Amino acid sequence: MRLKLFTLVLTILAFNARAQNEDSLKIRAIADEILLHSSAYENLRVLTKQVGGRLSGSPQTYKAEAWGHKALEKAGADRVLEQPCLVPHWVRGGKDLLVLPGWSTHILDVLALGNSVGTGPKGISAPVILVNSFEELEKKKDQVKGKIVFYNIKFNDTYIKTFEAYRDAVVYRGAGPSQAAKYGAVGVLIRSMSHAADNNPHTGTTRYNDSFPKIPAAAMGLQDADKLAAYLVKASELVPEVRVNLTTNGKMLPDTVAHNIIGEITGSEFPDQIITIGGHLDSWDPAEGAHDDGSGCVHSIEVLRALKAIGYKPKRTIRVVLFANEENGTRGGLKYAEEAKLKKEKHIFALESDEGGFTPRGFGVTMPADQLNKLRSWLPLLSPYGISEINNGGGGSDIGPLAKELGTPLAGLQPDSQRYFDIHHARSDVFEAVNKRELELGAVSIAALIYLVDKYGL
Amino acid sequence: MRLKLFTLVLTILAFNARAQNEDSLKIRAIADEILLHSSAYENLRVLTKQVGGRLSGSPQTYKAEAWGHKALEKAGADRVLEQPCLVPHWVRGGKDLLVLPGWSTHILDVLALGNSVGTGPKGISAPVILVNSFEELEKKKDQVKGKIVFYNIKFNDTYIKTFEAYRDAVVYRGAGPSQAAKYGAVGVLIRSMSHAADNNPHTGTTRYNDSFPKIPAAAMGLQDADKLAAYLVKASELVPEVRVNLTTNGKMLPDTVAHNIIGEITGSEFPDQIITIGGHLDSWDPAEGAHDDGSGCVHSIEVLRALKAIGYKPKRTIRVVLFANEENGTRGGLKYAEEAKLKKEKHIFALESDEGGFTPRGFGVTMPADQLNKLRSWLPLLSPYGISEINNGGGGSDIGPLAKELGTPLAGLQPDSQRYFDIHHARSDVFEAVNKRELELGAVSIAALIYLVDKYGL
Repeated sequence: MRLKLFTLVLTILAFNARAQNEDSLKIRAIADEILLHSSAYENLRVLTKQVGGRLSGSPQTYKAEAWGHKALEKAGADRVLEQPCLVPHWVRGGKDLLVLPGWSTHILDVLALGNSVGTGPKGISAPVILVNSFEELEKKKDQVKGKIVFYNIKFNDTYIKTFEAYRDAVVYRGAGPSQAAKYGAVGVLIRSMSHAADNNPHTGTTRYNDSFPKIPAAAMGLQDADKLAAYLVKASELVPEVRVNLTTNGKMLPDTVAHNIIGEITGSEFPDQIITIGGHLDSWDPAEGAHDDGSGCVHSIEVLRALKAIGYKPKRTIRVVLFANEENGTRGGLKYAEEAKLKKEKHIFALESDEGGFTPRGFGVTMPADQLNKLRSWLPLLSPYGISEINNGGGGSDIGPLAKELGTPLAGLQPDSQRYFDIHHARSDVFEAVNKRELELGAVSIAALIYLVDKYGL
Repeated sequence: MRLKLFTLVLTILAFNARAQNEDSLKIRAIADEILLHSSAYENLRVLTKQVGGRLSGSPQTYKAEAWGHKALEKAGADRVLEQPCLVPHWVRGGKDLLVLPGWSTHILDVLALGNSVGTGPKGISAPVILVNSFEELEKKKDQVKGKIVFYNIKFNDTYIKTFEAYRDAVVYRGAGPSQAAKYGAVGVLIRSMSHAADNNPHTGTTRYNDSFPKIPAAAMGLQDADKLAAYLVKASELVPEVRVNLTTNGKMLPDTVAHNIIGEITGSEFPDQIITIGGHLDSWDPAEGAHDDGSGCVHSIEVLRALKAIGYKPKRTIRVVLFANEENGTRGGLKYAEEAKLKKEKHIFALESDEGGFTPRGFGVTMPADQLNKLRSWLPLLSPYGISEINNGGGGSDIGPLAKELGTPLAGLQPDSQRYFDIHHARSDVFEAVNKRELELGAVSIAALIYLVDKYGL
């Protein structure tokens, strides 16, 4: 009996060793294919340089869709579909301006927040009130009426993973304008959510609460924010108020139609089991959307291309989705999940890349413990390519609705985060900020994980 | 008895948990100090922008020494010493040129290899012979006489860690010129050791074998190397030879004196046990030496500053060494080890940072297995700061002689390597290529490890 058990254990070990060796070789082949023949960098160059910034509803939206359609066909998708969805159509409408009468360089560089209302062509002129937190706003609520609230919330530099600093700060961009309007403010200025040593303003969406008036809101670069804050503190000892003039031109037009671009390889054994890999096509208007989220799009396309190129026949259906609208509405992801639910599709796994094209370090996942442990058991296969952690928690805005509607297990690629908020939603998010090898290694990591999920299920 | 053992185990566990918690808090304090108050980035700015490239023997050598001396004093070293050593004094001597008569843009951008001889002012005019390996050189050895050998060795993109690609390729820079001279070549051109998508030539030192004539040698950027190689292949079908004119002006002057700059905090319990942390002050002339190795210098200074700033009193003597000469002689490290041996110093650990100021990922160590395991047991304390691996093998050129002379255990910081060879020894190794937080996190990782080695010994 003992000997039998021993033999059984040996057999299992031998099998596992053989399986692991086979997987290791397959992942090596995927990596070689990507590192030697990737189209990711060139695809990104075309998207960023020939299409450029592509806010939902802008003419670039449709150029980007055509780009994605073609790139997926070229990558070898069995079929490419366009899934229409209604998206918000916000336009910036002109140059945003902040003027401080009396300053030597008195025109500051600001960017209206996405979805925000404009001030009208003459701008609004009002005193500025500085606050460093919602608590401080609460304390000063009686002084807010008729003023422009300046949220000077500093990024917390002591977090090692910069997304944690973003998580703390971004609530001010989302809820800050309505919170200020609640107390009668007429406008909002927000310190950009960034560590960057430069002065680029970083835009991003705000969400108005319908119970309060919608007021204009704009982001400032870190250098200007520091200067304005210091000036306000100093001036408060000398004068009763500092007035500024803020001009923004944002306008929300009626919703318009855009498309999720979907490229598929049909599974050979379980075609009804769907694995989704995605990034979002839309980006903020002032930049090229290279890291956010051109990288996620070309990562996803590259995974399909590489699996096809090495002749791998997936057991399950692999679907690359270039989501139509994430930045100011998440409408692409909502539509995708809605249709999946309607059609009773079986989504066994969804992965998003929306944290940039930097060197990969891990995945963040949202799934039951047994599935998480299964993914962690694959770490020895992934770590040679830079993946050293599978963290509990993570996914992506576009695939979030799949989890909500269908309970799909989610994963998000977690590249090194140190440079991400230097360029996030700012003019500096350009092709030149992406490194070819780092981008390719991200695709290697995703492709390796997708291969394992396809082969073994979850 | 059993109960006693149980109690003992519990006591040990409680102690370890307490010790680990104390260490975790101390390392957190070090990290906060560096992320909030680091001088590393500003120190690097001054070194790169006010001193600049600093090849041994150049006037910048002494400016860099003065910078290092002052920075170490400011960081809080108990004392700062200057250890003189003889260093090679190679000068580039002028603009390096490669001219291809008949090409549309016929002047190519090349950089003479460090320590190489010049061609004389008229240059050398000779046919070029292309080889892709030493094996090919061997096969073609009868055709080499009187020619310029062009080593077009491609960086192997399939390595994940780029230092492995460098290790394979760098032998051609080191030994290539003499190997070609052995068969009568009159000059050498070398494809730069890089993945970079640009055309910057990457210099670096060559080592002549005294048995053969010393011939001029220069590096070419990747775009020019590809073009020249393609041209040579095509031309070989049409013409008997393609002649080029190579002009380099390098000259080796007599050795001169430079200094290792050494800043120390004396140990409170074991002052005779020395822990060395270092980088090298010298750099190649065409760039600012920001990653190579300004980063290592400011990392090392920052470790001392941060430990001092949080009020940590090291048990052992901590010595920061800014080595005088690594690039074209390793004379700084040789001198340091020689003196250590003469004075019978006890060097318990030496760490170098000479792989750039990129986001940290691990340490590479050269030490007995029990010491390696001790370091690995600290991984849970280091991983929150980005250190996910302690690899067997590694150290640094400047501390290598300590291991050889005294058997000192070595470690080298291993930052993410993807971008390093884009800028290594090229004009693009400038301050702007260094990210503030990535640089600071490198210092955090080193300081954490040094704290643990100081506290527990090795």
